Amino acid sequence: MSDNLLQNINNPKDLRQLDINQLPQVAQELRDFIIDVVSKNEGHLGASLGVVELTIALHYVFDTPDDVLVWDVGHQAYGHKILTGRRENFHTNRKLGGISGFPKRSESVYDTFGVGHSSTSISAALGMAIASYIKGDFNKQHIAVIGDASIASGMAFEGLNHAGVTDANLLVILNDNAIGIDPSVGALKDYLTAVKEGKNHKDNNMIKSLNFDYSGPIDGHDIFAVIKELKRLQKIKGPKFLHIITTKGKGLQLAEEDQVKYHAPGKFDAYTGKIHLKSEENLPPKFQDVFGLTLVELANKNKKIIGITPAMPSGSSMKFMMEAFPNRAFDVGIAEQHAVTLSAGMATQGMVVFCNIYSTFMQRAYDQIIHDVALQNLPIIFCLDRAGLVGEDGATHHGVFDISYLNCIPNMIIYAPINEIELRNIMFTAQLGLKHPIAIRYPRGRGVIQNWQLPFEQVEMGKGIQLKNGSKVAVLSTGTIGNNVVEALAKIKNPNLFSHYHFPFVKPLDEVLLKEICMEYDEIITLEENTIIGGFGSIVNQFSSSNKCGILIKNLGIPDHFIEHGSVLELQKLCKIDAVSLIELFDSIV
Amino acid sequence: MSDNLLQNINNPKDLRQLDINQLPQVAQELRDFIIDVVSKNEGHLGASLGVVELTIALHYVFDTPDDVLVWDVGHQAYGHKILTGRRENFHTNRKLGGISGFPKRSESVYDTFGVGHSSTSISAALGMAIASYIKGDFNKQHIAVIGDASIASGMAFEGLNHAGVTDANLLVILNDNAIGIDPSVGALKDYLTAVKEGKNHKDNNMIKSLNFDYSGPIDGHDIFAVIKELKRLQKIKGPKFLHIITTKGKGLQLAEEDQVKYHAPGKFDAYTGKIHLKSEENLPPKFQDVFGLTLVELANKNKKIIGITPAMPSGSSMKFMMEAFPNRAFDVGIAEQHAVTLSAGMATQGMVVFCNIYSTFMQRAYDQIIHDVALQNLPIIFCLDRAGLVGEDGATHHGVFDISYLNCIPNMIIYAPINEIELRNIMFTAQLGLKHPIAIRYPRGRGVIQNWQLPFEQVEMGKGIQLKNGSKVAVLSTGTIGNNVVEALAKIKNPNLFSHYHFPFVKPLDEVLLKEICMEYDEIITLEENTIIGGFGSIVNQFSSSNKCGILIKNLGIPDHFIEHGSVLELQKLCKIDAVSLIELFDSIV
Repeated sequence: MSDNLLQNINNPKDLRQLDINQLPQVAQELRDFIIDVVSKNEGHLGASLGVVELTIALHYVFDTPDDVLVWDVGHQAYGHKILTGRRENFHTNRKLGGISGFPKRSESVYDTFGVGHSSTSISAALGMAIASYIKGDFNKQHIAVIGDASIASGMAFEGLNHAGVTDANLLVILNDNAIGIDPSVGALKDYLTAVKEGKNHKDNNMIKSLNFDYSGPIDGHDIFAVIKELKRLQKIKGPKFLHIITTKGKGLQLAEEDQVKYHAPGKFDAYTGKIHLKSEENLPPKFQDVFGLTLVELANKNKKIIGITPAMPSGSSMKFMMEAFPNRAFDVGIAEQHAVTLSAGMATQGMVVFCNIYSTFMQRAYDQIIHDVALQNLPIIFCLDRAGLVGEDGATHHGVFDISYLNCIPNMIIYAPINEIELRNIMFTAQLGLKHPIAIRYPRGRGVIQNWQLPFEQVEMGKGIQLKNGSKVAVLSTGTIGNNVVEALAKIKNPNLFSHYHFPFVKPLDEVLLKEICMEYDEIITLEENTIIGGFGSIVNQFSSSNKCGILIKNLGIPDHFIEHGSVLELQKLCKIDAVSLIELFDSIV
Repeated sequence: MSDNLLQNINNPKDLRQLDINQLPQVAQELRDFIIDVVSKNEGHLGASLGVVELTIALHYVFDTPDDVLVWDVGHQAYGHKILTGRRENFHTNRKLGGISGFPKRSESVYDTFGVGHSSTSISAALGMAIASYIKGDFNKQHIAVIGDASIASGMAFEGLNHAGVTDANLLVILNDNAIGIDPSVGALKDYLTAVKEGKNHKDNNMIKSLNFDYSGPIDGHDIFAVIKELKRLQKIKGPKFLHIITTKGKGLQLAEEDQVKYHAPGKFDAYTGKIHLKSEENLPPKFQDVFGLTLVELANKNKKIIGITPAMPSGSSMKFMMEAFPNRAFDVGIAEQHAVTLSAGMATQGMVVFCNIYSTFMQRAYDQIIHDVALQNLPIIFCLDRAGLVGEDGATHHGVFDISYLNCIPNMIIYAPINEIELRNIMFTAQLGLKHPIAIRYPRGRGVIQNWQLPFEQVEMGKGIQLKNGSKVAVLSTGTIGNNVVEALAKIKNPNLFSHYHFPFVKPLDEVLLKEICMEYDEIITLEENTIIGGFGSIVNQFSSSNKCGILIKNLGIPDHFIEHGSVLELQKLCKIDAVSLIELFDSIV
């Protein structure tokens, strides 16, 4: 290979100086660079490898950042970051203080819209395009790059439906690789597959039905073909749609072969692609697996149990239920709104529905929880995975609002287990039949108990638990963050002064226990992995204020600003809710 | 005319006893009955008139309630209610203690799914259909009736996308009348119009692309044709889609001619259809008009101002901006998610966006507010119309959660004006340029000030205001509910004991003022038209607890259960936040 071209590309202007025939070399170098860095630093691999040619072509043809480029979700934007001034910093990707794993406006002018959750790109780019139109700038280009999993989400349809009746200079590029994090599902996916395979009559074109100028499908790895088509589209005004076919993980054989695993494979050998396996012996289980395996165990006995996931069968471990009971477990795609109301429809017919949605994605179905579930008091069992700080995915993905947004909804039960056994037992209890919907929130990652598959025990509703007795200060925690309290109390100077209470039920709150606590102690400290505003602590405050307890209450949790990316421990430290910070706090009190 | 048939129809079984040739008479009688009762009692007129034939045909052909029927939104379900045992109670429609204006599960077994917000019917009916399939009941029919405005919402697309890959016994009936509350918009609407007009190649069929067995369009007022087609579809397994064409307001000439006005016309003459006009002289303006007219006034000077409404141009009075600046105001249809992210896209380009969404519908765009707006700190001006209790629309429509669900989001400003002038001035202030997004919440209906169009004054950010001075108890209110405090304090026995503070800013809270209050009074009463949990009061509690104020705080607001329908005053009384209840409370304190 000749001199490395990539190392001289500090922004897209440098790229545009190159001869078109040099671009395949840039593609190879960019792919190698991504593989090399991600193999050591971890991150999202497959999506970015799939759009290497598209990324180069877009920055080569269009005048970024004056022409605006919006990446949907952003898993695929590593190449974009590397070509737009962040090559040198790419090794800090997803690390505390480093660059974000997703496009982010504050990081670069080339990141025109912050992303992370899916299906926002069409609406955002259309907004930009309409703004340009109003300003009289009719030449500026506005491009949304969206995958086939993301375009099937309702929000993307809303964007297309609006764009189709505007004159906006919008180019939607469908990056069709038939997979999101897991394989794509749904009727639109079947339709796109038929188009790709040439089975579908181009007459019967969904996208044309929405008034778009449709072109494709073309091979997204043929950089010359992509550039030629982009140049053609550049001259066409109004809403345009380009359908390109790519392979997720392109260029790394193992990643092409196991696209689910190589979405974010952890560390791997850059040359062979082989993932560095960590020994999982003697480790407590992931909460995800506790959920997934327990669900199968329960579903074996309770034939009314149904499992629903919006596009996270692997991430949530719903895949176990899908394998064991394919007719009773559903991946509905990136469609949280539909997932919740589908669950509600099933519940009206007496089914016992476990609807597993990440805390941060449940924000997408907020109205459906209120209007379709809680108002009708349907006893759906929501499992809110990834509640609390999620680590490297950062601000877009932390699940730190759910207590606040669910607590105000009548009829809801909110439960946050401290460990695997509590998760398991609340699942068991919930499927026996509740009178209300329940949200069970638990974090990403591993618990604390290896021997967790014990016989089921029924959970008593609404009860808090004293974990440790002390004389002066009562620490009230909810959820797994309580383990930090356990750890801290084992290490402080005056442990005798501190009691620790675990409130697995945020709602209904154990007011009997709380009254005792208010009367017994000088001070209360509340702790949760949710925003302080509207969280568990706020209910404790309310109880105290309305009963004139006059007790000092310190609320610990997520402060009122967005928390960036980093390891969970680093972020807990920033919020002063890690064990070390708690030790400092506890030692400072007396 | 022969004997009245309708008066002998107490449930659909009675209907099914009739000869098919008697059904046109039933249709006429049903239409007359709806017109007669709604003309006196108010309610939603046009939608129900448009589906009279469809309603009769559905209950005639299908074995309801064993076959399940889900009405989308439910504005059109009056005929359904009347035919399913609620004819005698229909005059109590939307009244306190009477039947609901929407289908509601607790009201009738024929109401299989509670509705109110749009676009839920396909997901709900699909959930029911899959449940039947799992139970082995392959003959049961599951029908969703959805309008063309509702089907354009993303959630409906998600339902279709899933249904198309199932074997579920689902029939989706598109009731295409080209209008929601306001005329339908978007590319899908254009497509449907082309289909209706025979211009569209049936090959190019969107619905078929999603794997549905499509039939239509047929005339929805030809009851024989509808019955024939339903009987044919009854025998076909799997997902089916019937496109029928109807006229909103059918059978009442004025209602057909002015479909927007006759969506919910108030009282009118049952014979002529003429609306009984109330004198509006000497009345304060509607908050909606204060918003709409002020926006035009501001947009005249500030060329960066954009207006966005998801399908509520009339209801929100965004129509004034759409008339004055058609290129700068957008009705995006029932697409709240898109509306918010479109606004965000525009804001990145420096536009000053007023995005007006009813408080209850903002629940549909919760993730977009967090992820696309607040996280990027884009200074969008959200106007949350219909905040607080909305009256007759009831539990599905009260805007009583927004403070709680917005308060926990970093970067948000939340403002609740007490009157028209504050609304006007905060709009003025916001468009001058804020550093954060703002949500301005105001209620349905009229304000308190006739002479409201005064010169603009800039609002000082984050400041609370003392409205009355007293010695013992501080009443802290936010928003228009504060007028009840003003009224109550003018009538109590010992007004000298009570101070009244208005906190227009829920966030950021005026902590300087709050500290003074905590030090000066014996007791605090907070009042808001939002759930007590997570509301304005909860922040006051938090301030008090963390500062060990030790002051008794009583939080007034919406209690932790769903509030049904009735007049706003009746509902305020139920929540004990009307002026009379406040007088009782205040008088009881001393």
